[in-house]
Amino acid sequence: MSAPTRFAKLTPEEAAELIGHGATLGFSGFTPAGAAKATPLALAARAKRLHAEGKPFKVRVLTGASTGASIDDALAEADAISWRAPYQSSKALRNRINRQETEFVDMHLSHVPQMVEFGFFGKIDFAIVEAVDVAPDGRIYLSTSVGASPSYLKHAEKVIIEVNRHHTKQLMEMHDIKILPAPPHRNPIPIDHPLAKIGTPFAACDPEKILGIVETDESDGVAPFDPVDDVSEKIAGHVVKFLLDELAAGRIPPEFLPLQSGVGNVANAVMAGLGKSDVPSFYMYSEVFQDALVDLMEQGRLLGASATSLTLSEPQLKRVYDNMRFFAPRIVLRPQELSNNPGVIRRLGVIAINTVLEMDIFGNANSTHVAGTQLMNGVGGSGDFVRNSYLSILVAPSIAKAGRISTVVPMVSHVDHNEHSVQILVTEQGLADLRGLGPIERAKRIIEKCAHPSYRPYLHDYIQSATLGHVRHDLARCYELHQNLLKTGQMLPK
Amino acid sequence: MSAPTRFAKLTPEEAAELIGHGATLGFSGFTPAGAAKATPLALAARAKRLHAEGKPFKVRVLTGASTGASIDDALAEADAISWRAPYQSSKALRNRINRQETEFVDMHLSHVPQMVEFGFFGKIDFAIVEAVDVAPDGRIYLSTSVGASPSYLKHAEKVIIEVNRHHTKQLMEMHDIKILPAPPHRNPIPIDHPLAKIGTPFAACDPEKILGIVETDESDGVAPFDPVDDVSEKIAGHVVKFLLDELAAGRIPPEFLPLQSGVGNVANAVMAGLGKSDVPSFYMYSEVFQDALVDLMEQGRLLGASATSLTLSEPQLKRVYDNMRFFAPRIVLRPQELSNNPGVIRRLGVIAINTVLEMDIFGNANSTHVAGTQLMNGVGGSGDFVRNSYLSILVAPSIAKAGRISTVVPMVSHVDHNEHSVQILVTEQGLADLRGLGPIERAKRIIEKCAHPSYRPYLHDYIQSATLGHVRHDLARCYELHQNLLKTGQMLPK
Repeated sequence: MSAPTRFAKLTPEEAAELIGHGATLGFSGFTPAGAAKATPLALAARAKRLHAEGKPFKVRVLTGASTGASIDDALAEADAISWRAPYQSSKALRNRINRQETEFVDMHLSHVPQMVEFGFFGKIDFAIVEAVDVAPDGRIYLSTSVGASPSYLKHAEKVIIEVNRHHTKQLMEMHDIKILPAPPHRNPIPIDHPLAKIGTPFAACDPEKILGIVETDESDGVAPFDPVDDVSEKIAGHVVKFLLDELAAGRIPPEFLPLQSGVGNVANAVMAGLGKSDVPSFYMYSEVFQDALVDLMEQGRLLGASATSLTLSEPQLKRVYDNMRFFAPRIVLRPQELSNNPGVIRRLGVIAINTVLEMDIFGNANSTHVAGTQLMNGVGGSGDFVRNSYLSILVAPSIAKAGRISTVVPMVSHVDHNEHSVQILVTEQGLADLRGLGPIERAKRIIEKCAHPSYRPYLHDYIQSATLGHVRHDLARCYELHQNLLKTGQMLPK
Repeated sequence: MSAPTRFAKLTPEEAAELIGHGATLGFSGFTPAGAAKATPLALAARAKRLHAEGKPFKVRVLTGASTGASIDDALAEADAISWRAPYQSSKALRNRINRQETEFVDMHLSHVPQMVEFGFFGKIDFAIVEAVDVAPDGRIYLSTSVGASPSYLKHAEKVIIEVNRHHTKQLMEMHDIKILPAPPHRNPIPIDHPLAKIGTPFAACDPEKILGIVETDESDGVAPFDPVDDVSEKIAGHVVKFLLDELAAGRIPPEFLPLQSGVGNVANAVMAGLGKSDVPSFYMYSEVFQDALVDLMEQGRLLGASATSLTLSEPQLKRVYDNMRFFAPRIVLRPQELSNNPGVIRRLGVIAINTVLEMDIFGNANSTHVAGTQLMNGVGGSGDFVRNSYLSILVAPSIAKAGRISTVVPMVSHVDHNEHSVQILVTEQGLADLRGLGPIERAKRIIEKCAHPSYRPYLHDYIQSATLGHVRHDLARCYELHQNLLKTGQMLPK
């Protein structure tokens, strides 16, 4: 491939100067993986300068999902984000969202590329996308994530590419890029296996739109996971036992089914637990390829994985880059519209395992808002998977803050996954299989299997005292635990 | 076709005698259309007799969706249903569900056939299915609905067929039956147009399982819709204007997109309004083919429709049967797994219009439970469509019970469709387009556009007094309107 000599080289500061107040920006990045790095930092510096001069400067920010510190932390700390979608995990940004200083739209991640394509977000002024290489005709070879970048590159009016020399150009062997056209003339998506490829190794971009190239040499800065703790190990044990029982009962086929796993320490522990178990070697059709999966793939336990990002700490990423002949044929990185596609998830029969903040005794789950108001991160891809999976498994520790909080409550304070879609709830206490149960039977099982023993009497009493109905609730008391927490710092008196 | 002489003729009473206490039954029926009629009535009579003798008799009942009076009303009034899924609309049954006398599992309708196939419901003892004809080799030609009948016929241990001479055998020209295999080895569903056919005109059944044929000659007993009222007409007007604006803005393509419409008077009025409008002639990819659609099809406004049931009052059904050469090529009846399939709905870009019980100011909607506890009907197919549609439009009158109830509330008392999936809310007051808005912007727009003016001050005040956050709520007050209603019969003092 020829060097991208056709395009101007820009310093990050020169790139940032091109972006005006009020612009809508589509950044690459799905987790810190593949996030634009130098340009948003320079943009944050520019915003601070302008603010110091008393001038307004805020932008509207779209990404794949969460980002590295370079985008959400830096731009939020500079008070430079007026509007943000579809997901974030930055403390600085979260605080501004919860203070209503930044408008945040919490979205199913599979919806993002199609909403760009449909024109629902309006005009996108700039795509700012990290790549490992750019061809003079506008073929963009993305780095460690795909996310929504192909759609931003297609639809943005102007484009800035960050070419990051930290990553191997061989990443293109993993990429499978395809933008679905708008309906009604759409063919079925021909993915019939997690490793099926249906597109090209590059994202296409009109070269006339490319304002220039910013060169970088920076790691994604992915933090390694915590060591597996006792609670996570118990949760993993319940999930493994359940999956083995389902296999034995013939409700999971002997070749097993593709797995999806959410991001985080508990999910990472579950994957490690599955690797050590008697579950057959498996594929994944998931969102994020995380640290534990490198080991499982080397051990032959994970046969292959579809994802939209390679979110690996430096040592794990190095293992992959040092052995691309092994890893490249086993990992496919897709746009998030396809990694999280409802139709494909349902077709493949994905078993989805996701972490939640709280669950209620009737099987609804809250993934996003503490006490119904304070955003944590966002719904992310969990809704795409929970709603369309073969088996939807939601996991959480039964208590938090040394027992001052029960994650099992009478009514969740925000519903991200409702009783119609949730099938299996798991805490370190046990596993509640809700399939085929009405609300009261669900409640009994969730209290006995998932709630911490110190909260079971309260939860049983709640049902008894609630209004008789298909679901039993007392609308005067359903958030009593949350209100106690807000007032006293604990859900129940000691 | 040869007459089904191979199979024994049974009276309904003889058929009912074959069914024992505790059996799990899969009945045909999606709405009253195509519901088994004589056998369940005889079963209800048998239950009453046995109960009078002090003997236990209850069955577990699966259907496609709601049924005619013959199943849910009759069996509920006989106290003969211990467990029921996935949907119902019977007063007698609803009362027993809300008194906890019958366990009810409220399910997304597209999930039902696959859960049978996956074995999640356990053994199904009997399929009791209405047909227009049966071939000696077990080809079953279904009547006015498909629903989940093909799956019950495949998986039940024993089968009773009701051959209903009321319906034309030409219905087979509309049927397109296909059971999806269990994963992982599944190909894409090749439906790329509402009228695409991918299966056979019959459901297959092992003839050895067929215990006999019950002959009937009975209409489905579908009630005609109420005349369009002022409120429904205003809602329809807002929806039509919105769709025309989206067309003009290029966010709906000039050939339009397939429509889905829920069941009921408001939805029927919206369809009639669309027919009279400047919206281009369109296709439907929906669940139920209702009365208004017969007229629209004759007028050339509705070009074709995919559904799982032909739910027509007798005069409209007669018009269809009298002109099958016109109607048969324009209507496809599919299993509910396909009529409501998430992947197909998303692929085709369906615009989904559904009625809800209440909506909240942050864009969550309740389709199922009054005051969080009393089941109305169930979620039905609305979740299949809302979650996967190109545009999800939810409609309701802004007030009920002469203004004593506001359908726009601070927090819905049950979440069937959450803020991540709901895009457009409509009442007779106006239309709130929520795309791209954060929670507080949503709240302002919903209050101003959708809430009844007499509730707007309360709702504005609620937000002002609530806890600051990404979402604003006061957990002590979020159900104040509902509690007032339960105590005083009205949400706000006069």
